[in-house]
Amino acid sequence: MRDQYHDELDAITQSLVDITRLAGSAINRATTALLEADLQEAEAVISGDAAIDQLYADIEARALDLLARQQPVASDLRILITSLRMVADIERMGDLALHIAKVARRRYPASAIPPELHATVLEMGQVAQRICAKCSSVIAGRDLQLAAELERDDDVMDDLHRKLFRVLLDDAWQGGIEGAIDVTLCGRYYERFCDHAVSVARRVIYLVTGERVTVES
Amino acid sequence: MRDQYHDELDAITQSLVDITRLAGSAINRATTALLEADLQEAEAVISGDAAIDQLYADIEARALDLLARQQPVASDLRILITSLRMVADIERMGDLALHIAKVARRRYPASAIPPELHATVLEMGQVAQRICAKCSSVIAGRDLQLAAELERDDDVMDDLHRKLFRVLLDDAWQGGIEGAIDVTLCGRYYERFCDHAVSVARRVIYLVTGERVTVES
Repeated sequence: MRDQYHDELDAITQSLVDITRLAGSAINRATTALLEADLQEAEAVISGDAAIDQLYADIEARALDLLARQQPVASDLRILITSLRMVADIERMGDLALHIAKVARRRYPASAIPPELHATVLEMGQVAQRICAKCSSVIAGRDLQLAAELERDDDVMDDLHRKLFRVLLDDAWQGGIEGAIDVTLCGRYYERFCDHAVSVARRVIYLVTGERVTVES
Repeated sequence: MRDQYHDELDAITQSLVDITRLAGSAINRATTALLEADLQEAEAVISGDAAIDQLYADIEARALDLLARQQPVASDLRILITSLRMVADIERMGDLALHIAKVARRRYPASAIPPELHATVLEMGQVAQRICAKCSSVIAGRDLQLAAELERDDDVMDDLHRKLFRVLLDDAWQGGIEGAIDVTLCGRYYERFCDHAVSVARRVIYLVTGERVTVES
């Protein structure tokens, strides 16, 4: 039989899964907003960030409360401390989706992404969404296999990010300075989004195996 | 008389001050590397990041160890949890200085910053260094006055960041796309460096007053 304490611990893990799904939905909608110059989607992501912030504050408060009330030791202490760190990464993923949505809104009714970069940015959005979905599954199921896959997806993101710069630096680039700034910033946001997801997955690996995977600067 | 436990807690605070100073030195040297195309300074920042990462891991291990051994309650628990969060912010500040140094190295022997932006970027570097110095003092002395000053310095940074974009978007911009990408990225790194310092200061305010200051996305 489980006690109330472990039920609360499980509920925190479930909320981590929920907040990760919100971040995944945000990056998906932000990508649509960006590529299709869809102001409604952009506004939905921007206003929707409050729900992510609220769930973040809620998870944090519950984890701190459990820490203070139960003074857990060993693995339970590790789970709670790790949850506090993971939720900070995931909240930041929401912020990065928000930044992408703001670029879309700033350039509306134009699209910030010129036609020659649509396919690349679409793929960045898809990879980010995939990484985010795997991230939820890793949190929910502590699946190390999936955590490893997520690292490979992140390599794909890095390749796409480099491709973005190659297009910007090509003589054929027609987007001008303003376009280059927007693409540079959006590229950075997608890359950081995935870095945070990788960081979450690595924390789960650490919880399960005790092996620390060094996060690259 | 203090007990060993509180000595260890104080030692963690002292190490937080030390790591913040390392981040301050890194951003200062990275700015020199960037503006003066100084490869030696760039390499020093890049190789010096290992010391910041090491101190980060060390502080984290000591804080986790204290948490596990002493099961602190109330304010001591809050201090330890807050220390864990602050050190993550400060480690990230080191990474951002490293990114700036890498831009300097990539463009060597040229400077990534064209003459018309030297003064602005110099000021960004100085503000970042000042914010970082105040951040150490806030950690060491829990000085709320200084924490408020730091917020105002961050507003100055935001103004400088906007100025950067105005120069990039002016018809007189001669730096081309590559120059615009570098300036955009460096501007973002300085801005994020200061955001993390503000976040650290806000955590100290929260420790002292129990009042949470909302961090903007």
